[in-house]
Amino acid sequence: MRAAIMHAPGDVRVEEREDPRIIDPADAVIRLAATCICGSDLWPYRGADSPDHQHMGHEYVGVVEEVGDEVSTLEVGDFVVGSFVISCGQCEICREGHPSRCVHAVFVDGAIGTQAEKARIPFADGTLVKTPGVPDPELIPSLLAASDVLGTGWFAADAAGAGPGRIVAVVGDGAVGLMGVLAARRMSAERIIVFSRHPERQALAREYGATDIVESRGEEGVAALKELTGGLGAHSTIEAVGTQESMMQAIRSTRPGGSVGFVGVSHDVQIPGDELFFSAVHLHGGPAPVRRYLPELIDLIWRREIDPGKVFDLALPLAEAAEGYAAMDERRATKVLLTL
Amino acid sequence: MRAAIMHAPGDVRVEEREDPRIIDPADAVIRLAATCICGSDLWPYRGADSPDHQHMGHEYVGVVEEVGDEVSTLEVGDFVVGSFVISCGQCEICREGHPSRCVHAVFVDGAIGTQAEKARIPFADGTLVKTPGVPDPELIPSLLAASDVLGTGWFAADAAGAGPGRIVAVVGDGAVGLMGVLAARRMSAERIIVFSRHPERQALAREYGATDIVESRGEEGVAALKELTGGLGAHSTIEAVGTQESMMQAIRSTRPGGSVGFVGVSHDVQIPGDELFFSAVHLHGGPAPVRRYLPELIDLIWRREIDPGKVFDLALPLAEAAEGYAAMDERRATKVLLTL
Repeated sequence: MRAAIMHAPGDVRVEEREDPRIIDPADAVIRLAATCICGSDLWPYRGADSPDHQHMGHEYVGVVEEVGDEVSTLEVGDFVVGSFVISCGQCEICREGHPSRCVHAVFVDGAIGTQAEKARIPFADGTLVKTPGVPDPELIPSLLAASDVLGTGWFAADAAGAGPGRIVAVVGDGAVGLMGVLAARRMSAERIIVFSRHPERQALAREYGATDIVESRGEEGVAALKELTGGLGAHSTIEAVGTQESMMQAIRSTRPGGSVGFVGVSHDVQIPGDELFFSAVHLHGGPAPVRRYLPELIDLIWRREIDPGKVFDLALPLAEAAEGYAAMDERRATKVLLTL
Repeated sequence: MRAAIMHAPGDVRVEEREDPRIIDPADAVIRLAATCICGSDLWPYRGADSPDHQHMGHEYVGVVEEVGDEVSTLEVGDFVVGSFVISCGQCEICREGHPSRCVHAVFVDGAIGTQAEKARIPFADGTLVKTPGVPDPELIPSLLAASDVLGTGWFAADAAGAGPGRIVAVVGDGAVGLMGVLAARRMSAERIIVFSRHPERQALAREYGATDIVESRGEEGVAALKELTGGLGAHSTIEAVGTQESMMQAIRSTRPGGSVGFVGVSHDVQIPGDELFFSAVHLHGGPAPVRRYLPELIDLIWRREIDPGKVFDLALPLAEAAEGYAAMDERRATKVLLTL
């Protein structure tokens, strides 16, 4: 099979690799229907992380080709959506609703890699959710989004306490931030204020439910947001970047007693304890428990109540993965879908 | 009147000051029935904060002596308990349940100072809660505890999500940590594990509901706690110290998806973003919204369902405040009550 391999920062190649096969009786092997490139893939691409995740990709939808003897909820031919973290579904942490920190958790990146034609998924029952049937092709991008960016944006909105009567702020106008807007709207937030300087992303944010756009950032951005919120700040802030600046912008945009849902993978961030203490702002984040949300998200997509797939603004064949990385790196694309 | 004044680190003197009087129509003047010394008073006493809070004290119970024209819920002669933060009770932040960050918030420390015979309390309706009648003298220590340490420990347990089926860990065996134990027990926590090396504090912790004591701290303490919890850690951790070591011990003692309720006033703490992210632990803390809890806490004390007053292990007359500070500084006392 073919798979995207990152040899070094900026160097992604699609190469031939051995087909995956069942190793453990809880495994499934799936044939990918679509996959994509994540904003977090840019960290190693840009050299901020060492590209030890050579087999790239952790977002995926596809068809079950083979199942191990212990797999009980899936059959060959099922169409499935999976989380970007392998989870057993049985341990105490999974049962408490935190599958991305399952005691058997494995990040799909690197260990598996779904920018490929096929993938072996361990703990298939605990990781994959089958759709009600074979999806219409037009639903594929949205189902694929559920695998990470939608699930992550959803978690961020949930963790930030988005809901009726709440003012939501969104730091980060990438795919996850935009999914956070969609989620906050579905959760009936009263107002959704997005920090963004990019006209196309602003337009999609508004389509997904943003009520206000703030173009400034940092202290100036916080001041602009405070001005829009009676001096108090947002109740619920989504942090979808992962830098020191974005984290502090998120905390400072949030009113006392409010919450920051932070899902940007944290890079060189140090949160000052005294400022956090006196802010009385809650922090709640980390790798999103996407598997917990998948049944609900698949249902909303299946009934065409949400259309997260619009977040993909470029589709390329897997063979052109390198161009997909370059397009996202240069911000020519928000999120790239890879077809198979 | 007499009041305790901190002139410099280690130098507390009880001196004559002018009697407070009504300045604003929302004020009340109270005559203190009892006051006390807080663990946080030791920060300036030890020179970690500059002692700009010269008028010391922020915990208080007393009798209303005079009210301004706008005060509507209190009358002269009422016995009252107040929060350590002045709050208006009317602004959006107060109405959302976060009175310690009221838009008019003033810390009673320094600005007012209740280690004194009398105090002027601004926004009396929003800050003070009257008891059902004049309390029996034996209830005074417990009502006084509600003013800060009990309310703060209660918030920490609440913020950490203590409740049925939950394992609670408590970092810090001072008065607030002990009150956190009491609160977690009242909230029906399944198990309460307290880090403590002090036999007397261990005994009181057990009396308040601790099920396990861990004597080690830091990484060793975390390992011991993990051993007690099937390798997973606590669901709910109370951080009641405020140092880098205690904060990291709290985060690392908490299982994925669990929560740290942090109420130790943060001193030189930097929380590493990447560790917090991958821990999937929630942080929720700050100055406790004591005023929100006061009606419930007063009720529990009045009905003798809780006995937080046992946390005072030394009582001295106000005139001997300096000895009270020394006793707490030298850990000869957990918490000192000052009589009037």
